[in-house]
Amino acid sequence: MDDLTNLQKMVPHTTETLQKERQKASFSIREMDYFINGEQYIEEKNKALEVIRAEPKVFDQRNIYFMSRTEKIEHALIQEKRVQELLRDKKITQEVLQSIYSIMDWHTPFEITRLMFIPTIEQQGTEQQKEAFLNPAKEYKIIGCYAQTEMGHGSNIRSIETTATFIEETDEFEINSPTLSSTKWWVGSLGIASTHACVMAQLYVKGNHIGLFPIIVPIRSMLDHSPLAGVTVGDIGPKLGYNTMDNGFLSLNKVRVPRFNLLQKYITVSRDGAVSRPANINPRITYSTMVFVRANIAANMGRQLAKGVTIAVRYTSVRRQFGELGQPETPVLDYSIVQYRIIPLLAKTYAMIGMSHEFFAQYKKSVNQINNGKFTMLKEMHAVSCGLKIWSSNTGVYGVDTCRHVCGGHGFSMFSGLNEFFNNIYPNMIVEGDNYMLAKQTTSYLVKSAHDINQRKHVELNDTTNMISRFMNIDNQVPPQQLFTWSVLEPSQ
Amino acid sequence: MDDLTNLQKMVPHTTETLQKERQKASFSIREMDYFINGEQYIEEKNKALEVIRAEPKVFDQRNIYFMSRTEKIEHALIQEKRVQELLRDKKITQEVLQSIYSIMDWHTPFEITRLMFIPTIEQQGTEQQKEAFLNPAKEYKIIGCYAQTEMGHGSNIRSIETTATFIEETDEFEINSPTLSSTKWWVGSLGIASTHACVMAQLYVKGNHIGLFPIIVPIRSMLDHSPLAGVTVGDIGPKLGYNTMDNGFLSLNKVRVPRFNLLQKYITVSRDGAVSRPANINPRITYSTMVFVRANIAANMGRQLAKGVTIAVRYTSVRRQFGELGQPETPVLDYSIVQYRIIPLLAKTYAMIGMSHEFFAQYKKSVNQINNGKFTMLKEMHAVSCGLKIWSSNTGVYGVDTCRHVCGGHGFSMFSGLNEFFNNIYPNMIVEGDNYMLAKQTTSYLVKSAHDINQRKHVELNDTTNMISRFMNIDNQVPPQQLFTWSVLEPSQ
Repeated sequence: MDDLTNLQKMVPHTTETLQKERQKASFSIREMDYFINGEQYIEEKNKALEVIRAEPKVFDQRNIYFMSRTEKIEHALIQEKRVQELLRDKKITQEVLQSIYSIMDWHTPFEITRLMFIPTIEQQGTEQQKEAFLNPAKEYKIIGCYAQTEMGHGSNIRSIETTATFIEETDEFEINSPTLSSTKWWVGSLGIASTHACVMAQLYVKGNHIGLFPIIVPIRSMLDHSPLAGVTVGDIGPKLGYNTMDNGFLSLNKVRVPRFNLLQKYITVSRDGAVSRPANINPRITYSTMVFVRANIAANMGRQLAKGVTIAVRYTSVRRQFGELGQPETPVLDYSIVQYRIIPLLAKTYAMIGMSHEFFAQYKKSVNQINNGKFTMLKEMHAVSCGLKIWSSNTGVYGVDTCRHVCGGHGFSMFSGLNEFFNNIYPNMIVEGDNYMLAKQTTSYLVKSAHDINQRKHVELNDTTNMISRFMNIDNQVPPQQLFTWSVLEPSQ
Repeated sequence: MDDLTNLQKMVPHTTETLQKERQKASFSIREMDYFINGEQYIEEKNKALEVIRAEPKVFDQRNIYFMSRTEKIEHALIQEKRVQELLRDKKITQEVLQSIYSIMDWHTPFEITRLMFIPTIEQQGTEQQKEAFLNPAKEYKIIGCYAQTEMGHGSNIRSIETTATFIEETDEFEINSPTLSSTKWWVGSLGIASTHACVMAQLYVKGNHIGLFPIIVPIRSMLDHSPLAGVTVGDIGPKLGYNTMDNGFLSLNKVRVPRFNLLQKYITVSRDGAVSRPANINPRITYSTMVFVRANIAANMGRQLAKGVTIAVRYTSVRRQFGELGQPETPVLDYSIVQYRIIPLLAKTYAMIGMSHEFFAQYKKSVNQINNGKFTMLKEMHAVSCGLKIWSSNTGVYGVDTCRHVCGGHGFSMFSGLNEFFNNIYPNMIVEGDNYMLAKQTTSYLVKSAHDINQRKHVELNDTTNMISRFMNIDNQVPPQQLFTWSVLEPSQ
């Protein structure tokens, strides 16, 4: 074949076009970066880039679109190993580690041991349990997952079928998932990586149903990683995205574990089967965790959409099509048909990131209050976090899709970077409460608040109820022209 | 690992639930099938299923989600070979062949030789050219593609850079693509399969630019399939979907072909460089081809969406979540939050398929008129086909996405059948005129017609202009309450 490196250069060249576009900015890009991202975020990102550039072989992602799923997982595990070494040697912080994975733009089979298994033991384990499970987990001597969802049970957690029955004779729990629908399913890091699973099971003691609780179950041999007796475990197969994650299935056939393995912060079962729960636990605290997880999704979607918009804006700046005769064709970004699709998305990335700063500030405030026994902010935080999660994940996922479509044919190539990317962020609309399910949480709060305000009942004063009061304008306390900001704007503005 | 075949059965069982749902139909499913699909379509589908079932090894698609791209292409080629044998032996018709591929639900690297290379020579070749290229193509002795799009030139066909220059000394054309942006790109069946390309090139004769014309260029050796001198050719790499198709690139460095290879129906260049075009060719005829291609996309999208809706309706019938205590959980299809997403899509599949029958009937009528030299229907057919292509591809692609989302977590698994499927139909929004570009064609026609009607100028009478006249209601000829069907409905209806 011919050597294509000697082809005539493009006129005007891509580099030249991009430089020209960048010079048009009416503000300092550096100042904007500090304003919207903050100094700490930028420093962590720079440190992450430094680590990645120092070891090009480990962190090279150029061939990922040609790799099989197995090759991708092997590559991701090599990266995970290296990153964990750097963390252990205190060369990087936990935040820089997160930043590295954000740049790598994929997941690894050890992610859930980091993000869910370890935190669950930290939050719900006793000191003895931490010694038994947390310390080896932190040293990667055991790898864990969080096995809640079952094939037949996702949104409706209460209907989970897997049972943990106290066997007084041997001082053990017997874990059982007797049906296909009770098979644990979708569990991240379970398919190939985990030695242990934190299994959510219906607890039965002396014939009484106690409730849903987490229990640590060893599932694979510490010698040769083969499944233990009674354990059927594997990968659930290829998915739209997330294919470097080994989402797995787990069927437990009357598997016995010591009584010790039930995480004991919220429940204890004594040697003779007496069940007790600590008195000072407010069940609403778990709401606070869900608020935090959703706030993280909202914040992350802003950053993800920013990636997509960056690709689309750059491409549409250099892609030229039609124009005046004898001139270089017009950059497609100059057409209103393209602008009206991308520019609002560009604005939304700023809105999302800015909004997430504000929401985290409010979250911090609410956590401080909760630590002082005051739960007044929690209801609104829950309702708002649900709404934010829905809006930001819908906007982010379909925003990236718009970025892809605006790149025309070339957007369809994997090399656009927008396809595996779209596939990987898609589950944000489904996990941590499907968006259609979650909407009910937000609307219930809004409707109930509006109803209470209308009935002149007491409601918590917060941004949401203030806005509803203002909107309902009972007794016409606010002159119509002051009702909303935009109503006082002059027509010319 | 344990044997999972002895797990307890689901209550109620999936089969039982589906049977119950099906019994609720208030009409004969068989009659509806004949009404909406027609007898011929059903017979072809049954014949296709018979062929597929007779050779389970060749047509087995069970493992496709575990195959690499190379394995998929090899599997698709084995199928193509078998299907072509059956066609050659007159065991199946061309229509049954199409039906087989519709069921296989993917594309093969020989598709473009069938769907574009052969038809182009049939339409634009002389008898001599048909003997030289068409006959061997029909016998698969040569494989061809249609190389129009270039890396830098998609929608704006006029700016295509590749040139074909007449060399009088040797009685040849010299084909040249001197820049990166002039490299042929996205061309189906080019990456690995084609021996010949039908190249769209700017024709130059004696220094004069004649226009864009198709010319047959041999690109790979008939002995060992290696690229010929001056030819750089290959696969453009992985894409979101269509990965069993070898979309390719082609750079031609002053490649010479005989003058004979210029397809001569619309243009001839004589031995001494005299250019002539037949007098009886109306350039509007090519519009008719585009109308046909778009009508096919519209018809196909209805059938594709029907597949997605079938999967979603079946899954949401058997998927149960929440419900009354002590009862089996409620099928999620029974929730309005699910119904309002799927049921309108179900209705739209019928609307799309029905609409495509009507549109093809109108198309046939217009072709008959064109054959009699009457072009009056063409403008409206063009405008309507653009609008239909936009609406049906947007509705189809995002309808399948809704079907996926409504399947919750399991929709994200490749085994839902909705993911590679979504990826494969996605380009319908981009090819044959990007939807955003095409919209202008339809709106221009509507606005111009409305303007002419308002100015009381003559417009062609057809469904569209009739509707516009009615809507504009000049001189209030129609009483307001009769203006549209729905305005005469009683409020209770």
